Amino acid sequence: MTHSPETPLLDRVITPADLKRLSDAELEQLAHELRAETIAAVSQTGGHLGAGLGVVELTVALHAVFDAPRDKIIWDVSHQAYPHKILTGRRDRIRTLRMKDGLSGFTKRSESPFDPFGAGHSSTSISAALGFAVARDLGGVCDTGSGDAIAVIGDGAMSAGMAYEAMNNAGHLGKRLIVILNDNEMSIAPPTGAMSSYLSRLYAEAPFQDLKAAAKGAVSLLPGPFREGAKRAKEVLKTMTVGGTLFEELGFDYIGPLDGHDLHQLLPILRTVKARATGPILLHVLTKKGKGYAPAEGAADRGHARAKFDLVTGEQKKSPSNAPSYTKIFARELTRLAAEDSRICAVTAAMPDGTGLDLMAERYPSRVFDVGIAEQHGVTFSAGLAAGGLKPFCAMYSTFLQRGYDQVVHDVAIQRLPVRFAIDRAGLVGADGATHAGAFDIAFMANLPGMVVMAAADEAELMHMVATAAAHDEGPIAFRYPRGEGSGVEMPEKGEPLEIGRGRLVREGARLAILSFGTRLSEVMKACERLSARGISPTVADARFAKPLDRELILKLAAEHEALITIEEGSVGGFGSQVVQLLTDEGALDHGLKFRSMVLPDTFIDHASPNDMYEAAGLDARHIEEKVLTTLGVDVLSRKA
Amino acid sequence: MTHSPETPLLDRVITPADLKRLSDAELEQLAHELRAETIAAVSQTGGHLGAGLGVVELTVALHAVFDAPRDKIIWDVSHQAYPHKILTGRRDRIRTLRMKDGLSGFTKRSESPFDPFGAGHSSTSISAALGFAVARDLGGVCDTGSGDAIAVIGDGAMSAGMAYEAMNNAGHLGKRLIVILNDNEMSIAPPTGAMSSYLSRLYAEAPFQDLKAAAKGAVSLLPGPFREGAKRAKEVLKTMTVGGTLFEELGFDYIGPLDGHDLHQLLPILRTVKARATGPILLHVLTKKGKGYAPAEGAADRGHARAKFDLVTGEQKKSPSNAPSYTKIFARELTRLAAEDSRICAVTAAMPDGTGLDLMAERYPSRVFDVGIAEQHGVTFSAGLAAGGLKPFCAMYSTFLQRGYDQVVHDVAIQRLPVRFAIDRAGLVGADGATHAGAFDIAFMANLPGMVVMAAADEAELMHMVATAAAHDEGPIAFRYPRGEGSGVEMPEKGEPLEIGRGRLVREGARLAILSFGTRLSEVMKACERLSARGISPTVADARFAKPLDRELILKLAAEHEALITIEEGSVGGFGSQVVQLLTDEGALDHGLKFRSMVLPDTFIDHASPNDMYEAAGLDARHIEEKVLTTLGVDVLSRKA
Repeated sequence: MTHSPETPLLDRVITPADLKRLSDAELEQLAHELRAETIAAVSQTGGHLGAGLGVVELTVALHAVFDAPRDKIIWDVSHQAYPHKILTGRRDRIRTLRMKDGLSGFTKRSESPFDPFGAGHSSTSISAALGFAVARDLGGVCDTGSGDAIAVIGDGAMSAGMAYEAMNNAGHLGKRLIVILNDNEMSIAPPTGAMSSYLSRLYAEAPFQDLKAAAKGAVSLLPGPFREGAKRAKEVLKTMTVGGTLFEELGFDYIGPLDGHDLHQLLPILRTVKARATGPILLHVLTKKGKGYAPAEGAADRGHARAKFDLVTGEQKKSPSNAPSYTKIFARELTRLAAEDSRICAVTAAMPDGTGLDLMAERYPSRVFDVGIAEQHGVTFSAGLAAGGLKPFCAMYSTFLQRGYDQVVHDVAIQRLPVRFAIDRAGLVGADGATHAGAFDIAFMANLPGMVVMAAADEAELMHMVATAAAHDEGPIAFRYPRGEGSGVEMPEKGEPLEIGRGRLVREGARLAILSFGTRLSEVMKACERLSARGISPTVADARFAKPLDRELILKLAAEHEALITIEEGSVGGFGSQVVQLLTDEGALDHGLKFRSMVLPDTFIDHASPNDMYEAAGLDARHIEEKVLTTLGVDVLSRKA
Repeated sequence: MTHSPETPLLDRVITPADLKRLSDAELEQLAHELRAETIAAVSQTGGHLGAGLGVVELTVALHAVFDAPRDKIIWDVSHQAYPHKILTGRRDRIRTLRMKDGLSGFTKRSESPFDPFGAGHSSTSISAALGFAVARDLGGVCDTGSGDAIAVIGDGAMSAGMAYEAMNNAGHLGKRLIVILNDNEMSIAPPTGAMSSYLSRLYAEAPFQDLKAAAKGAVSLLPGPFREGAKRAKEVLKTMTVGGTLFEELGFDYIGPLDGHDLHQLLPILRTVKARATGPILLHVLTKKGKGYAPAEGAADRGHARAKFDLVTGEQKKSPSNAPSYTKIFARELTRLAAEDSRICAVTAAMPDGTGLDLMAERYPSRVFDVGIAEQHGVTFSAGLAAGGLKPFCAMYSTFLQRGYDQVVHDVAIQRLPVRFAIDRAGLVGADGATHAGAFDIAFMANLPGMVVMAAADEAELMHMVATAAAHDEGPIAFRYPRGEGSGVEMPEKGEPLEIGRGRLVREGARLAILSFGTRLSEVMKACERLSARGISPTVADARFAKPLDRELILKLAAEHEALITIEEGSVGGFGSQVVQLLTDEGALDHGLKFRSMVLPDTFIDHASPNDMYEAAGLDARHIEEKVLTTLGVDVLSRKA
C-alpha cells in the first residue's frame, strides 16, 4: 500500500479559500481524501491519529463555511489539527510532524497565520476565542483581520474548570462567539465526571434524524433576507435544539447534537450559524475518535497517539525497549506499597494511562481517582484526602502541575498536609515540544516552605523515592522523574525509604565536584569517562534532594574542591539556585571556590528527540565535559588535543 | 455604647456541643447575641465584617444540627468564619483577630480542631470536603474522627472553575457530601457572570413561603423510622426543590432556595439532610451580607472589610494617609494611558476595587473586564485579547496569579503575546497573613523565557513601569508593587517608558554594593544612613528589572566592589538567583567577590503588620545593616560600639 493515496481534489487545495469553489458533494469527496492523507502521513511520522480522524468532516465544513485566517478557528489542545494543517498550506510538510525542524504536533502561531492561537494543554480555546471576539468588537487590529472566533473543544476538555470559567464569562458578555463541542466520549482516556454523563444523556434523547430535518429547515431559510431580525434568528436556532439546558443556563444558545461525520448536517447548520448568530452559541457535534480507520476505531484509546505504523494492519513500529519506563516503575512500586498500606490512594487528572495509575486501579479501583482534566481540584482534593487521614499520591505531569500551583501553595504547603506529588514528564519531553516541557517544577516547588523535593537519578532511585514519599507523613513531598525508559540499572526488589535531605557520593575525585539532581547523572558519568582521558577526575554526587538540601555534603564538596558544578533538568531558580543560596549564606563562595549551575537555557525548546533537545539545551555529556574544562580553566588548545 | 453586648446565652456556650441543649427559640436568641458580639469584636479589631454577619443564623444552625469537629464544616474563603470562631472556643481571643499573635482572619488547621481545612483563597471548599468524604468512606482516620463533610461556599466563589471541577467530580463519585451555597449576590464586588444570573433566576422563581411549607413537611417525616429507605428520602428532598436543574445535571440533589436568616427553615431542613442524605446535596441558601448592622447593609460592599469602626455610626477609624496607595497610582496612570490609546484594556478576576480597575471602568466601562474569580480564564482571555490586537493589562494580586500560572506559561509566554501583568500585593501583605503573601511571583515569572519582569521601588517608579508596559508590544511584561501606601516621593506628571533591562544607580559608595529590586529600596537607604555613622558607605542601585537583567550594571558593581548584596521581597529562586546565575556564568564570583542574596525566609509568615512581618523576615533596615556588616567582616565588638 502506497504512502501517498490518490487525492485528486485535495491536490487542488492550496488554501482554504479553494474550498469555496467546491460543491457539497465535492467537499464530501475531499473529506475522504483528507482522511486518507492524514492516515498515510501519521503512519510515517507517528503522532496523534485518532483525534484528527474524528474531525475530518468538521475541519472541511469549518473551512468551507468560514473564512480563515480572518475567522479564527481555535483547536483546543490541537491534537486534532493535522487535517487542518493539511488544508492550510502545510501539506507539503505534513510528513515532518513532530520531528526536529518539522511541523509541530500542535497549532502554533509562529507556524502559520491559520493558527491564531497555539495549544498543547487542554481547555484554553474558549477563553482565547472570547478574547478574539471582544478584541474584534473593540476594534482590535491583528495582521489577519478580525472575523468570527470559533473554539473547537472536546468533551474531555469540558471537565476543566477553565472551560467553565470561560463559558460563564462569555454567557455574561453576550458577544457573538461560536463554541463547537466535539463530543467523542473520549479524551485520552474515557472521560469521567458528571458533565460527561450529562452529555451522554443529551444525545441519548436526540436521534439524528430529527436534526437532519431541522437542519434542512434551517438552510431553507438562508437565502431570504433577514426579515424577522435577530429575534427570529434566535428562534430558528432554537428549533435545532434538543436539550442543552445546562449550556443555556450559562447564556449560550445550544444547537445539537449533530452527526459530526455528516456534511449534510454540518454544512447547512454552520452556514445558518454564520448568517444568523448574535450571541454565544454552542454547537454540540458527535464524532468518533479514529473514525474511518479500522485499527484506530477498534483500539481502546481510539488511536489517540501512535508510533509509526503499518497502514494495512495498524501495527506500530516501535523500537524495542530494554528498560521499563519511569512511569511504569512508579506505578508498580506504588501498587506494591498500596498492598501493604490501605491508606495509600492516588489521584490523576485524566491521565490514568500516562501516569501509570491504571496499573494500580486494576488492583485497587476504589483507591484511584480520575478527577478529569481538573488539576486545581485534583490537588486540593488530595489535600482533603490527606487531612482525612489517607496517604494520597497526586500524580501529574510537571507541565500540568502548573495548573494546580496555587493549590499546591495554599492548600497543601501552607497547611503542611502530607500530599505526595509524583511529578512525571519532568525535564524535556521530546516530540510534544515546548508546551509539554517540565522545566519549572523544581523552581516552583523548592521555594515552598516545608516542601520536600526529590528527583530520581535512575529507575532504582525512583523506587526508593516512592517508598520515601509513602513513609513521609510529616508534610508534603514531591519527586520528579522523566518521560521514557530508565537506564537499565540493577533494580532492588523493593524501594527503601531514604533519609530526608541526604544525598549520596557517587564517585570520589579531585579538584572539581559535580552535584547532580535527577537523571542527568548518567550524562555526568559519561562526561567523567571522557575527562579521565585528560587526567581529570571529578567527584560526583547525587543530591537526591533539592529541599531540604544536604548541607553537610554540599559544604564538604565546596570545602574540598576548587570548583563545584550543579546540574539539573530544570530552569534557573531551582536546584542550583537553592545550592548557591546556601553557599553564599555560608560564605562558602567568598574565597575563590568556582561555582557553576547548569540549567535549562532561557528559551522554549522546540520539539525534537529528547537527546537532540538536551544537546540543544547544553545538558549532555559533551557540554558537561566542556563546562568542567572551562571552569577549571583548561585552555582551548589543550582541549582540542 | 459598650464593646461587650449583653450575651447571656452566648456566655454559656463553650463548645458547639452546648448548642444541643438549646431549644429552637433559644437558638434564635443565640443568633442575635452572636451577631452583636461579632459586630462589637470587629469594631475593635477591624476585619471582614459583612460576610460573617450574613451567616450568623447558618453558623448557629450548622453547629446545632451537626457535630463538629467530627463533622467537618469547611468555610470557603473563610472571611465569614468569625461567628464560627466565637462558637468554637475562640471567643476569648476574638478581639485579637488579624493582629500579631492573635487569631487568624481565616480558618486555620493549626488554630483549632474546629477548622478542618484552612482557607484564604476562594473556591477550594468543595474539593476539600470531597476529600474528607472519600477519606471517610475509605476508612481514613483523623484526630477528630470522620463524619459529614460540609462545604459552605458563596455565590461569587461559584464563578471559579475549581468549584465546577469539584462538583463535576463529586457528582460522578456520588458520595454523601453537603454543599451549602451561600447566595448573597455579592462576593467582594457584585459577582458577574452567567452563573450569577442563573442563581438570580432560581430564586426569582421560588417564593420563600412555599419552602416554609415544604420544610414543615420534611420535619414532620423526621421522627419515624426510615421506612421507605433511601429512595424515599431522595424524593422527600426533591419536594423541597424549586429549579436547580443545572446542579442536578451535575449529579447533585438541589434544595432551595431557603431564607438563610430564618432558623425555622434552616434547622428542619438541615436536620432532614443530616438524617436522609445519601449522595451529594446542594443547599441553596439566600443571605444578606452585612445582615443586621445598618451601616454595613447600607454600604456598597455590604461591609466586606472594615478598619476599626464606631459601633453606632459605623464610621471607620482609619489612620490618616499621606501618600496614595500603589494600587491607586497604577489605576490612575493606566486610566491616563487608556485615554491616549484606545487599544488599552484591562482584566480583573473579581477584584475591580482591590486592583483599582474600578477607576478605569468609570471612564471606560467597555474596556474593563471582570471575569469573576477565574484567574485561569482571565490570563488566557488576556492572551486572546492581545492576539486580537489589543493591549490588555491583566491585573491580579501576586498570590492569585498563582491560579493562572500555567496559562501565563502556556498561553502567554510560549506565544510571546504582549499581555501586561500588573502584579499587586507583591511581598508581605499584613493582616491577611500567609495565604495572601505575594512571595513567589518573581521566581515563577522571571524564569519564563521572553518575560520581562519589573518591580517598582517607589510610586513614581510604578508610574514609569505602567508606561513601560503600555509601550512594550514585543512580548509579555510584568510589574509588581506592594500593598499599601507609597513612600511619598515626588511624583512626575506622567510615566515615561523605561529602557528595557536597564537599572539605575541610586547612590555611589565604596567597598560594598546593594542591588535592590522593589520597595525594599527605602529600607536600604535607611540602612545606609545608619552605616554612614560607621564610615561605611555602600553603593546602591535599583535593578528595576529581574528580567532581562542589566548585565552591564551588575557586572560593573561586581567588578568595583568587595561585596554585592541583592535584596527583594520574594522567595529564593527569584531576583537574587537570576543575578547569581549571571555572576557565576560570567565567572564574576571566582575571585573572592562576596555575594549575598537577601530574600524572604523559608517559612510562611503569620499575619501581623507589614512592618512586623518584614522585621520577622529579616528584610528591614536593621537586618540590612547587619548583613552589610557581617559580609564586610566587621566584628561583633566594633558593631556594638
